[in-house]
Amino acid sequence: MNKIPLKEKYPLLPREERTGLLIVNTGNGKGKTTAALGVLLRAAGYDMKIAMFQFIKSSAALSNGEHIAAKELGINIIPLGDGFTWLSENIEEDKKLAEEGWKLVAPALQSDEYDVVILDELTYPLTFGWLDKNAVIQAIKNRPKGMHVIATGRNAPPELIEAADLATEMHLIKHPFREKGIGAQAGIEL
Amino acid sequence: MNKIPLKEKYPLLPREERTGLLIVNTGNGKGKTTAALGVLLRAAGYDMKIAMFQFIKSSAALSNGEHIAAKELGINIIPLGDGFTWLSENIEEDKKLAEEGWKLVAPALQSDEYDVVILDELTYPLTFGWLDKNAVIQAIKNRPKGMHVIATGRNAPPELIEAADLATEMHLIKHPFREKGIGAQAGIEL
Repeated sequence: MNKIPLKEKYPLLPREERTGLLIVNTGNGKGKTTAALGVLLRAAGYDMKIAMFQFIKSSAALSNGEHIAAKELGINIIPLGDGFTWLSENIEEDKKLAEEGWKLVAPALQSDEYDVVILDELTYPLTFGWLDKNAVIQAIKNRPKGMHVIATGRNAPPELIEAADLATEMHLIKHPFREKGIGAQAGIEL
Repeated sequence: MNKIPLKEKYPLLPREERTGLLIVNTGNGKGKTTAALGVLLRAAGYDMKIAMFQFIKSSAALSNGEHIAAKELGINIIPLGDGFTWLSENIEEDKKLAEEGWKLVAPALQSDEYDVVILDELTYPLTFGWLDKNAVIQAIKNRPKGMHVIATGRNAPPELIEAADLATEMHLIKHPFREKGIGAQAGIEL
């Protein structure tokens, strides 16, 4: 019989003894952001300090389930599009918005404050050229040694995969919206 | 430019107006259970009633991060291996354990109590023949219409995929344990 690892008891090591991972969730399927939220839940259970930034989200997302529940756990999920609109007709506006967001993200990646930093949908600013890909990846590499970083989004650039310790492709097998015309539902996708 | 859907505001519909989804997270990569935990977080944000059962886990898992944080949100994650050991040398023992677990799961799938039922690592009891695959899938199909069910685990049987509304394969691109000899870490994988 195949062995299934029974992962049950692992103590939380002091930060300086941890190996901070860069985790990348990419692919055309569901579960990229959702799996990042699952890590947020786990890490919250260990009272780790977590920062989650969301590109491609505006403050309208603050009423979503993950924002509300994370707040109950003492974690603020920060949409970086507050007051602006992503994916406008004007790429310069998106670029400016991403750059403003990066001004919040970059210090978080350098600080000793966080155990886990989640960069939700980071791949879009990289792919669309709103942020300097090499500078972003270098900033991630230069983070404190014990900090875990999770980056999500479709079409992760090869350089990001190359820098990752753990990379997963979420591959769509079946999708209710496409197959049956069912839209996104609160509590499941939002 | 590619359109990225800005999924921000979706109201929680009354249960009778929801389309309960069967979501299957399978594949050899990370993120199957983790994405289910992410849905748990979202659903908790909407005050939905959630039951999460874990095959292939014993009560030792109760000290893991997801258990602690879920409890803070008022949700009990229930390991079905309490007092026994999964994957013993004796398949009859595993079978008996799975059957005992199923006696807790089956009523939950029939009741009106839950908005979301998560069956973590369900695929193993199905694949190893500890539970009757057809009976389990039929029980899932017969659930109340508005109930969402999430099943996780490698090698999901084709019949389970067939029954699913949304199926995702988590595909391993890179893994730190394999590539660099880094083991599972608290707060991230546990």
